[in-house]
Amino acid sequence: MIRINENYTKLKASYLFADIARRVNAFAQAHPDKPLIRLGIGDVTEPLPPVCIKALHAATDEMADRATFKGYGPEQGYAFLREAIAQHDYAARGCAITADEIFVSDGAKCDCGNIQEIFATDGLRLAIPDPVYPVYVDTNVMAGRTGANVNGRYEGITYLDCTPANGYVPAVPASPADLIYLCFPNNPTGAVATRAQLAAWVAYARANKALILFDSAYEAYIRDPAIPHSIYEIEGAREVAIEFRSFSKLAGFTGLRCAYTVVPKALKAWDHAGGEHSLHALWNRRHTTKFNGVAYPVQKAAAAVYTEAGKKQTGDLINFYLGNAKLIREAVTKLGLSCIGGDNAPYIWVNTGRDSWEFFDLFLNKAQVVCTPGAGFGKCGEGHVRISAFNSRENVITALTRIAAALK
Amino acid sequence: MIRINENYTKLKASYLFADIARRVNAFAQAHPDKPLIRLGIGDVTEPLPPVCIKALHAATDEMADRATFKGYGPEQGYAFLREAIAQHDYAARGCAITADEIFVSDGAKCDCGNIQEIFATDGLRLAIPDPVYPVYVDTNVMAGRTGANVNGRYEGITYLDCTPANGYVPAVPASPADLIYLCFPNNPTGAVATRAQLAAWVAYARANKALILFDSAYEAYIRDPAIPHSIYEIEGAREVAIEFRSFSKLAGFTGLRCAYTVVPKALKAWDHAGGEHSLHALWNRRHTTKFNGVAYPVQKAAAAVYTEAGKKQTGDLINFYLGNAKLIREAVTKLGLSCIGGDNAPYIWVNTGRDSWEFFDLFLNKAQVVCTPGAGFGKCGEGHVRISAFNSRENVITALTRIAAALK
Repeated sequence: MIRINENYTKLKASYLFADIARRVNAFAQAHPDKPLIRLGIGDVTEPLPPVCIKALHAATDEMADRATFKGYGPEQGYAFLREAIAQHDYAARGCAITADEIFVSDGAKCDCGNIQEIFATDGLRLAIPDPVYPVYVDTNVMAGRTGANVNGRYEGITYLDCTPANGYVPAVPASPADLIYLCFPNNPTGAVATRAQLAAWVAYARANKALILFDSAYEAYIRDPAIPHSIYEIEGAREVAIEFRSFSKLAGFTGLRCAYTVVPKALKAWDHAGGEHSLHALWNRRHTTKFNGVAYPVQKAAAAVYTEAGKKQTGDLINFYLGNAKLIREAVTKLGLSCIGGDNAPYIWVNTGRDSWEFFDLFLNKAQVVCTPGAGFGKCGEGHVRISAFNSRENVITALTRIAAALK
Repeated sequence: MIRINENYTKLKASYLFADIARRVNAFAQAHPDKPLIRLGIGDVTEPLPPVCIKALHAATDEMADRATFKGYGPEQGYAFLREAIAQHDYAARGCAITADEIFVSDGAKCDCGNIQEIFATDGLRLAIPDPVYPVYVDTNVMAGRTGANVNGRYEGITYLDCTPANGYVPAVPASPADLIYLCFPNNPTGAVATRAQLAAWVAYARANKALILFDSAYEAYIRDPAIPHSIYEIEGAREVAIEFRSFSKLAGFTGLRCAYTVVPKALKAWDHAGGEHSLHALWNRRHTTKFNGVAYPVQKAAAAVYTEAGKKQTGDLINFYLGNAKLIREAVTKLGLSCIGGDNAPYIWVNTGRDSWEFFDLFLNKAQVVCTPGAGFGKCGEGHVRISAFNSRENVITALTRIAAALK
């Protein structure tokens, strides 16, 4: 008899986006004359940078000619892309990351979800922030590293509360953890971690032989020169951290799919008998067994991001979204609400001081603006909403005018 | 302390392709004047069909304009592609598969590797062919469904021997299995299964409440009208089979990455208490949690395959490779060697009657032709080599002339 992975039955169904869609559709049907502005979802809205379009066309032409056609590429990514990443994202910031420590993939979501496969399922102590991008939690539930969901939280996870009290950046826990998820600039809060805060986490990981999974999918939005873009800017992180990056928010690749994961060769983990193993070797085995590389034209488009023109164009794109974010942040503050994010991140996390669904409904019904209720990201998200800066300037300005009128 | 998934330590490292590369490089260095012809690897060599090139360019232009730009798409694939698949690959052959039972992905390798996650890891009885595409075995080893590797075979797997005695198509085993991997047209042997043979497997699965994972990545190479292209052409298969398909060998997408998996809604599996669960719901949860869809331009290129021009162009492409295969098959037979495959598959499986590495070396050193030693695909591969039809006509003819001279 074929039996299921029963860990899936522990998953608490997330009705967040389904609930949002239901309420939005109901409103739209009842008020077809009132156009909605969507500042809810974390998806980009502007076209791909011209360098990427040019690279896609050129690579497509290569695929049309037998002499330049590309079949299977290296599962880990083409050298031209891995070398560009190592040089521009790491060497340029003083991080000693080599091209063969970079694994190109089709998405940070996939990598963040798949990485846990190379770790033990029995007795591993997890530390995961709250609020949080749900993939970190759900993939560990599926793998059997948690108990049941009790009152919205899974047994067996140490939740790292991100609250107004700690500026939404959690301190290291008092008890030891083995596998720690961190995300800065943060989704959903937009909070960033200082060098000192990250150094404390690296020190904690070193002291506990723990591993940090560092999601920096939004690093390109950092404008404060004092904030590290990579965990590897912290001394000693090469021995205790894996980093996830993405072209999705850097260059608008959400519909093209390209990301990468850095697994330094210095990273070790242990078996139950105390034997030491290379995580780079383990991840390489996983990646080459279950993945077959990213589309060649997409890798060429990603590499174009690192040209001088590409840097200028992606910089302009991000400045545009950050311009939206600044407007949102200022307008929210002017309305007497406290918020973080929006200065080094495309998200503004608003402390509404009331039930997050109630606030969502207020925005929807009174301002015809869609945001995301914080409760959907975890217990500590209650009382907050996430507003995204991904939209046209015109829509953002209209939305803010409507919000101001609604909250008067 | 961060601990590893110790199942990875059970994996027997495959040195097959590394060994081939080493021997090939050694030969090439010693004989720079003797150009090699590679008929080893299973990768296409001809450019993408013009309809796909056109679709890639058009979709790239859409990504350059805010009004037509595509960000995140549905994780399961765009409706335009799922509907085209349901209509042309299934309805047209009388199979009742609906668009929402089709999950578009970036590769059949990924899907074949990932599918096992939704099944139990304890006590599930596996049946896997030998010789075999290594992903089926390795991903189950990683998940902890096997014991140690003893003399080249993992404990806990029922190996389905594919030998000259059974025409390389295994009969159902005497003992019950829960999860069965089948691949037709087969990689590496090129064998196809008749309707009666598939019907026996479906009956076996129904009788044992087992599940068949049916890999039909090479179905487009079937030319014999009596051979089923899909497991769903067999009555009752909707209740016991998941099917994997790919655009890689159908339309030369090995470097573009697009495939799909069919999970019928009628499929059930059970928990340890006997409770019934929908595999469609489980796979949907897995797919949407750990995957974020295929690049939009790639999906447009895949959909172009189903146009009238696309069908003609991919048909011509496959006929071209099958023309190579026919030449190889005839030449090998003329040399007095028995073989199968090559008529409904791009691979020819040669029964060499001697050690497969010895035969590999003979081809390499005497004919400067690279093939794949059968032993790399499993115990039953010993004594065989795989010759691939993926190359230019000119190279295939030259290779066969050299082989004939070498074996004289």
